[in-house]
Amino acid sequence: MHMIVTGGSGFLGQQCIASLLKAGSLELAPEASTPIRSITAFDVAVGSLQHPKLHYVVGDIADPHQVSALFREDSAAIIHLAAVVSGTAEADFDLGMRVNLDGTRNLLQAARAQNRLIRILYASSIAVFGGDLPAVVRDETTPTPQGSYGIQKYIGEQLVQDYTRKGFIDGRSVRIPTVVVRPGKPNGAASGFASNIIREPLAGRPVVLPVDASTAMWVASPRAVVKMLMHALSLAPSAWGWHRAINLPGLTVTMQEELAALEAVAGKKPLALVQQQADPAVLRLVNTWAARFDTARALAMGFSPDRDFETIVRAYVEDHPEALRDA
Amino acid sequence: MHMIVTGGSGFLGQQCIASLLKAGSLELAPEASTPIRSITAFDVAVGSLQHPKLHYVVGDIADPHQVSALFREDSAAIIHLAAVVSGTAEADFDLGMRVNLDGTRNLLQAARAQNRLIRILYASSIAVFGGDLPAVVRDETTPTPQGSYGIQKYIGEQLVQDYTRKGFIDGRSVRIPTVVVRPGKPNGAASGFASNIIREPLAGRPVVLPVDASTAMWVASPRAVVKMLMHALSLAPSAWGWHRAINLPGLTVTMQEELAALEAVAGKKPLALVQQQADPAVLRLVNTWAARFDTARALAMGFSPDRDFETIVRAYVEDHPEALRDA
Repeated sequence: MHMIVTGGSGFLGQQCIASLLKAGSLELAPEASTPIRSITAFDVAVGSLQHPKLHYVVGDIADPHQVSALFREDSAAIIHLAAVVSGTAEADFDLGMRVNLDGTRNLLQAARAQNRLIRILYASSIAVFGGDLPAVVRDETTPTPQGSYGIQKYIGEQLVQDYTRKGFIDGRSVRIPTVVVRPGKPNGAASGFASNIIREPLAGRPVVLPVDASTAMWVASPRAVVKMLMHALSLAPSAWGWHRAINLPGLTVTMQEELAALEAVAGKKPLALVQQQADPAVLRLVNTWAARFDTARALAMGFSPDRDFETIVRAYVEDHPEALRDA
Repeated sequence: MHMIVTGGSGFLGQQCIASLLKAGSLELAPEASTPIRSITAFDVAVGSLQHPKLHYVVGDIADPHQVSALFREDSAAIIHLAAVVSGTAEADFDLGMRVNLDGTRNLLQAARAQNRLIRILYASSIAVFGGDLPAVVRDETTPTPQGSYGIQKYIGEQLVQDYTRKGFIDGRSVRIPTVVVRPGKPNGAASGFASNIIREPLAGRPVVLPVDASTAMWVASPRAVVKMLMHALSLAPSAWGWHRAINLPGLTVTMQEELAALEAVAGKKPLALVQQQADPAVLRLVNTWAARFDTARALAMGFSPDRDFETIVRAYVEDHPEALRDA
């Protein structure tokens, strides 16, 4: 079969593709592996990963014709990661609507038009939660997004839900925790500091922590997230039932705890590169985010979180030796 | 000021316009009435109501240019009722998406483009609730719509919420109970039977009740709904706070109780015209609907439900003498 990964050149997209290529197949029907013959990575740029089965298409997901053209006769599964991130969606409302909402609709419509049940994994986000939240967010907590990104992601979930109910697709939406530690350069995500305060000091670069050290976040490592995405894609429709959106497991971690883990892994030296300087704009946004979850449903469905934050930092060091100074 | 009422030729639209014309003004700022100089009713057909201040525009809400053209220099408030109803949205998915989703986006975008804060009242529906519901739906109950109409209405709420948060509009969404007794002909709404079993027998016409007599619904009379819509439009932004969607008060009534009220008002004769004959398709949909609500927030904000169902039937008889046989 053929697979499509939107946002396939991005950080999570590349990791998902690597994982799919390594697995070589996907369990689309219970106890029946379907070999993955080819993968199309659709994005605004080409990624660095190269493989005979991997093909890049650079384009605009807001253009329905380009999205339709991604499908082949044997397209059977999609991971839909393409999105304008939170900070960008807030700064450029129309761009967020275009990519995050219109783009998702285009993909769902194109999949529906194939006239066979295509499995679609939709990357939603814990940004759907915000505002007057309970101390612990549960499976039944009502999403009340406080940013355009969260609104757009939540609307996408509703569409995936309805397209699935109508039998147009076999959809599933996962609300991904903040991914920490993200490698590479800081992106437009407002939550970026949670990665920056680990990655930058490890590379010998100074970094600003724009929130209080007591600020808690709901995080998961790239390794854990990719594993959970693969699990979400492999689960049988019956494991989901009618409700196709789920909060993924993660860890509640304060920035203080992140820095303690950094020290445990790399000593005191990198700590000196972290300067705390509150940014009211970031604070305002972060204070509306959910940091504590009870993900009973996901745990029962076999999704697994990271063990602890120190393990996350150690995995980052292991996976990115090039990004370390004196490591 | 100028007002726009989308779906203005429909049943609720005409009643809202009549109410606005009678009031003559709207409280847009606290304790300051703004006179209503003109109203544009936008719909797929012209309505019967005529008034020097009322102007009809027939068109397609899914066409952004037609929607933009509705606005005048003094447009200050909108009631957005235009929608494809539940049964139709379920039968024709693309039409529902086009009118209910694209139409709403067009209206919000056009209002935003006016560069002043336009007040928009969005008619949502209790159809946003469905599926595994608690015995009583509360303000904090998570909407999980089980039909495309409910999904589209819920997405509209999310957009109204975000456009309001961004300062593009002053929006408010009200989830309207099933409106009973609707006059005129049966429409495409799956909930139509709740009106049909009162209206048709009163007119001397036979009618089929497609659900069990014990089936309960959350209903409100046209009079109560119009009054609540006017209230929702008049409330100051501060009365809403950040959360701009609300469940409107109503009455929980079983079909048995409806028929008892019919008998109390019109005697035994009309009852003989009601034939119970279960329709599996209607049953399947109705069984996912919410029938019991605790609308604490709306009551605290001054919204009022009907007194009882018999009063609803009496009001229908009073308002529609032409629709009665032997009355």
